[in-house]
Amino acid sequence: MTSQPIRNAPNQEWMRRAIALATENVALGNGGPFGALIARNGAIVGEGANTVTATNDPTAHAEVNAIRAAARALGTFSLAGCELYTSCEPCPMCLAAAYWARIDAIYYASSAVDAARAGFDDAFLYGELRKDSHARTLPATQLLREEAWASFAAWIASTTKIPY
Amino acid sequence: MTSQPIRNAPNQEWMRRAIALATENVALGNGGPFGALIARNGAIVGEGANTVTATNDPTAHAEVNAIRAAARALGTFSLAGCELYTSCEPCPMCLAAAYWARIDAIYYASSAVDAARAGFDDAFLYGELRKDSHARTLPATQLLREEAWASFAAWIASTTKIPY
Repeated sequence: MTSQPIRNAPNQEWMRRAIALATENVALGNGGPFGALIARNGAIVGEGANTVTATNDPTAHAEVNAIRAAARALGTFSLAGCELYTSCEPCPMCLAAAYWARIDAIYYASSAVDAARAGFDDAFLYGELRKDSHARTLPATQLLREEAWASFAAWIASTTKIPY
Repeated sequence: MTSQPIRNAPNQEWMRRAIALATENVALGNGGPFGALIARNGAIVGEGANTVTATNDPTAHAEVNAIRAAARALGTFSLAGCELYTSCEPCPMCLAAAYWARIDAIYYASSAVDAARAGFDDAFLYGELRKDSHARTLPATQLLREEAWASFAAWIASTTKIPY
């Protein structure tokens, strides 16, 4: 007996589907060459491709779109029990989104190195996130910290809140 | 003369607005106690509060919602020239989203420490992103790397692509 969760074997056909979404996306002109899908219990429950330029949404990466689609389809904000298949290693935004969505496992095809060869460089972002706030190129300044506690106090006092 | 960009002084009223959005959001029952807005050229161009639980979207943090709203309002995927005001230090997903959106500067009120006192702990996520892939709690496995190059090859060959 084992208390370890049983990890599904990687599904190559789902990865081929994610890659096909990425390649098709270039021809469709919707955005970058990235595709992703969410699978659960042997079935695809959400798909997405990068639509940053087509929808004027800088957060519309393939993984984020696939997570949104799956959560909408399943009617839940938790994708625990789901796996993410993505045509390329997730950027920090998409990786953190996968954590927030409670995804169980990630499968990816291209490496960040491959993406860099095609003009995409997520390595810079990973480097920024490793730094302390004051050392980053995007400046961040704190103000009104005391006043802002009111928001958390309201949350703590709420009897109807839904933790996530 | 200086070649440094002129940084606007922090606008306390905009931060009070972000805090108000956060506090109101608890009463509205839309999600966590977080609010944010995007400002440009002296005006607010987009607002957002956390709607994770109300919209079943684990990516719908206040900053992401504000970025989406501002990009939609301005009709562009680049928020260069814009500033982000947020009631709390951005999580890694939202910080990376601000980079992708080309935001100029971030102003925040509560610290991650304050958020932790209210039951939110983004520190774990920052720790995960600092780790190498194999050391993270969310397992990531590579497969079909060679096949996936086709997507990037299509992007490189495309004469109609829009870089972002």
